Amino acid sequence: MGGSENGATDNESSSPSTNKATETSLSPDSIINLDQGDPTLFEPYWKKMGDKCTLVIGGCDLMSYFSDISNICWFLQPQLGDAIKGLHRVVGNAVTDGRHIVVGTGSTQLLMAALYALSSPSAGHPVSLVAAAPYYSGYKDQAEFLRSGLYKWEGDAHTFDKDGPYIEVVTSPNNPDGTIREAVVNLGEGKLVYDLAYYWPQYTPITHPLDHDTMLFTFSKCTGHAGSRIGWALVKDEEVARKMTEYMQISSIGVSKESQLRAAKILGVLSEGCQHFRTADSENFFQYSHRIMRERWESLQNVVENSKIFSLPKFPQDYCNFTGKYTDSNPAFAWLHSKEDIDWESLLREHKIIGRSGERFGADPKYVRISMFSPPETFNLFLERLSAIIDNTNGNVVGGEESSIIK
Amino acid sequence: MGGSENGATDNESSSPSTNKATETSLSPDSIINLDQGDPTLFEPYWKKMGDKCTLVIGGCDLMSYFSDISNICWFLQPQLGDAIKGLHRVVGNAVTDGRHIVVGTGSTQLLMAALYALSSPSAGHPVSLVAAAPYYSGYKDQAEFLRSGLYKWEGDAHTFDKDGPYIEVVTSPNNPDGTIREAVVNLGEGKLVYDLAYYWPQYTPITHPLDHDTMLFTFSKCTGHAGSRIGWALVKDEEVARKMTEYMQISSIGVSKESQLRAAKILGVLSEGCQHFRTADSENFFQYSHRIMRERWESLQNVVENSKIFSLPKFPQDYCNFTGKYTDSNPAFAWLHSKEDIDWESLLREHKIIGRSGERFGADPKYVRISMFSPPETFNLFLERLSAIIDNTNGNVVGGEESSIIK
Repeated sequence: MGGSENGATDNESSSPSTNKATETSLSPDSIINLDQGDPTLFEPYWKKMGDKCTLVIGGCDLMSYFSDISNICWFLQPQLGDAIKGLHRVVGNAVTDGRHIVVGTGSTQLLMAALYALSSPSAGHPVSLVAAAPYYSGYKDQAEFLRSGLYKWEGDAHTFDKDGPYIEVVTSPNNPDGTIREAVVNLGEGKLVYDLAYYWPQYTPITHPLDHDTMLFTFSKCTGHAGSRIGWALVKDEEVARKMTEYMQISSIGVSKESQLRAAKILGVLSEGCQHFRTADSENFFQYSHRIMRERWESLQNVVENSKIFSLPKFPQDYCNFTGKYTDSNPAFAWLHSKEDIDWESLLREHKIIGRSGERFGADPKYVRISMFSPPETFNLFLERLSAIIDNTNGNVVGGEESSIIK
Repeated sequence: MGGSENGATDNESSSPSTNKATETSLSPDSIINLDQGDPTLFEPYWKKMGDKCTLVIGGCDLMSYFSDISNICWFLQPQLGDAIKGLHRVVGNAVTDGRHIVVGTGSTQLLMAALYALSSPSAGHPVSLVAAAPYYSGYKDQAEFLRSGLYKWEGDAHTFDKDGPYIEVVTSPNNPDGTIREAVVNLGEGKLVYDLAYYWPQYTPITHPLDHDTMLFTFSKCTGHAGSRIGWALVKDEEVARKMTEYMQISSIGVSKESQLRAAKILGVLSEGCQHFRTADSENFFQYSHRIMRERWESLQNVVENSKIFSLPKFPQDYCNFTGKYTDSNPAFAWLHSKEDIDWESLLREHKIIGRSGERFGADPKYVRISMFSPPETFNLFLERLSAIIDNTNGNVVGGEESSIIK
């Protein structure tokens, strides 16, 4: 969804030339697609877990629409609810006590549900939806594609100054730039939705359990299981949980039970691995995924620091309660910036690299977002090509082309 | 969805007191919920199939967002596409050649996608959405809940006479009344969506393969696996398939891969069973489910024919190409009618039976829709209570109450 499963939400990039599902081998001519955040790089960990995470479903299982009719979210499998609570308890990233859990087809569907739940059908005009730029490019599409009269995309929260009710989506760590965020509008009639897709130890230090009214998470970015399409909302207000459930009911009559059971199993194994991690011989998932992400960031930082004009955001170390030490931030996306007036997206395309322009995030084309999730060989080829671009731009010539790119 | 997965789309009935997920034992005081169409009555067949339909998913499987990037519907698992085509070929209910398959989180999500795909964002006003009354009660909710500016619910197709573009949903066999239907508006600028959730041999004779531009089916009502939330559209026009895929992309970034794989497996087993059915020792799924539905309909007809004022629709036998003989219709819902001016829903509620009033379907409260899908003990208790109601109404006294009900 939103800040979370920003996988394939772009029409212009819906035919990626390289991704896990098709990648066989890369040549110097291969197009490298770093537009989407398809988190298949965590696959080796789950492979290593062998049968521990294997799910077996009999032909007569899970046939009913209903999972637990005593729950507001009547299609939530109780095992998944328990696994979600258990994981947040172990990681310490969010408060679940006194919260309603609403499950969704990815947190994408849950953002739609939150917009529905937090808008006021009785109001004569739509509620404003804002997010601080740079904001996840999918929010605008989600808010606009059905021309709903319930909500209206108003863009950058920093410049929002309308009276009346509004919803601010706070993405933290932020997609695209990895920053830790708080709400910026802070007017009386605002409602906040926290998109916390990346608030997990592999991406950022877990400084404290968040305690907001409406918080969205996704299985996709937590463990890398994007194909399951499982997200969850932790919701304080009963009526909001009820309306979000109603949205799911009307738009899809619930959420795949197979995926829910699988998520429950995998989140359970993940939590168990974390509980003993200080005494265990082998890495738990967050240690593994943090190491992989850290290695990638170090490689990228090593390449970019050679540039005279390009830079990456800097993140201070912070104390992570989960790991019990100071750790780095390793965002899922790199938010590359150029001091010079370069159209990053075009420059990368000339080198057969697909990124997503800063413009799509309400920012400048001097920024580009690059997925850090690509398969290893793709990532390495990207680093090679980026090195070449940097060598060229340091000499102020772009890839042997005319310098039309550097305006 | 629409005519299909009409499970729990009603707010007023979202806390069913009896259903498969919770039913333990029924007492004379138990509330019988026949409002929803939760098709768990087919469970015993799949149980009997043992390991044949068991699905095993490893921890590292299905992690990517993508399934087949060469397909317009890039999140459709190829195995499911093949299984869908194979089943339609065996059953002979729909043409798949030259069609694009779009998979959805139930056909509910696909109806939303079809509305998005068939509306014209460039038009200044929303496209009209109609369905012939009695129509599935969920269509109105789906069309109205987000106050989309793309489409507008205009109710009964029989009375629709506006100029300009419109979409007519044709539900056949129809929910609630089981009739075989064709489009009724037939004006120049119309687009048709066929909701064919119940066009399977257990419900109706398969007279010919349907060949419409946009046809929706659902796993829920075909095999009874409602919890998987899998539906599919067969779409002739490439641009419509592309826009429907875009709807899925923006609203949920695809569809559960676990559910897709499971549906592929079960539909495959189903097709295989049907191919040898004239020589096989045991019943295939459609023979089994047709027998169960037939037995229910005969029991209900036996009870209702004792009434002086109540009646059920009559369906002529027709030649079923699939079974190679003349067969009866056994709709998923009974559409009970009263000659007298009775508010059916209230009358049933007095006897602790929850049905859905004709009013919800754009019809008269002298009609009520009753699910034929309840667990056996629930269905039998319903028949007992209906017998008592009929005895009372034959004597023109309702349940020992004042005759306020019979106005």
